[in-house]
Amino acid sequence: MTAEQNPAPRERDRAPKQDRSRATRQRLLEAAVACLAEHGWAGSTVAVVAERAGVSRGAAQHHFPTREDLFTAAVEYVAEERSTALRDLFPDGPADRRAVVAALVGLYTGPLFRAALHLWVAASNEDQLRARVTELEARVGRESHRIAVELLGADESRPGVRETVQGLLDMARGLGLANLLTDDTARRERVVAQWAELLEQALG
Amino acid sequence: MTAEQNPAPRERDRAPKQDRSRATRQRLLEAAVACLAEHGWAGSTVAVVAERAGVSRGAAQHHFPTREDLFTAAVEYVAEERSTALRDLFPDGPADRRAVVAALVGLYTGPLFRAALHLWVAASNEDQLRARVTELEARVGRESHRIAVELLGADESRPGVRETVQGLLDMARGLGLANLLTDDTARRERVVAQWAELLEQALG
Repeated sequence: MTAEQNPAPRERDRAPKQDRSRATRQRLLEAAVACLAEHGWAGSTVAVVAERAGVSRGAAQHHFPTREDLFTAAVEYVAEERSTALRDLFPDGPADRRAVVAALVGLYTGPLFRAALHLWVAASNEDQLRARVTELEARVGRESHRIAVELLGADESRPGVRETVQGLLDMARGLGLANLLTDDTARRERVVAQWAELLEQALG
Repeated sequence: MTAEQNPAPRERDRAPKQDRSRATRQRLLEAAVACLAEHGWAGSTVAVVAERAGVSRGAAQHHFPTREDLFTAAVEYVAEERSTALRDLFPDGPADRRAVVAALVGLYTGPLFRAALHLWVAASNEDQLRARVTELEARVGRESHRIAVELLGADESRPGVRETVQGLLDMARGLGLANLLTDDTARRERVVAQWAELLEQALG
């Protein structure tokens, strides 16, 4: 920012404070996802995340009063970041289907999916978490579906197209699971190539 | 067993003891899968399972010296039971593809999948468990693939067929995940119907 662009003094005082608060929040969210991916739900507390983010525990609790608040917000934040990154990969909309399928599957094979998986599985046994994660999963799922339809150039008014795309995203989730304990990259690339071809035929 | 079929006295003494031991083992394995599905890895100990199975803790530890032994054996045992049940559903081999796809997907939407998922996710953070579960997953995965190829009447010598079947099993796993927190039956049935049709075209 050059001197000419500096805002008026009062605005300047407020802006850096807001920026710092936003930056702290972001550091906490990113640390929370990394923590969940590496240590699972049992090893992920607000205190552990605060330390990892280099933020005081009080500041962490100011932003996220409960453990559930922090981790559901974290998975949602990173899911949004990934969606934006995915759209940015294909700025002109519908693209080569094999590239799109590979990119969609990529959403489910990194640390975000690992973190989300830990949260889902923990939610299946913890009532407090369950409602929050169910709602989050539905929201993230709808957004992934929207992006997939858009980038695949799929016409959902045609019978079966909606279910074709849904099945593809289910497959992507299953490929994420298969990558949890071992590096499944080589097999996954062959499956992606083949299913991209099946999709090409199905979507026309 | 009628009187005429009774074995000789010495054999008779041994047989009931073996039967009792086998029955105890089986009760432990079934209780272990149910426990894992309901309470997750953190809530699943040998003691909890022994109590659920109505078996003394000493007897449980005689059969399964460690917690890892018990739970990996349990998931493998139930997976084998499910494979046998699946083959029994289609005794004449290759069958109607929609029915086969639905049955394959069914493997991943019940308590066994839920139990296996807890074990996988725990294994991703626990080194002791990781090697055992990785090996188990590979074995169970190969067997599922074999059954799928057989019942779908898929000719794997044709290019792409192997990957088509693999992708289908990945989709089944993803559908299992989508059923973890909510009852996804209605959506799943539509996806299965559509992909069974696409598979029909792909497999010829």
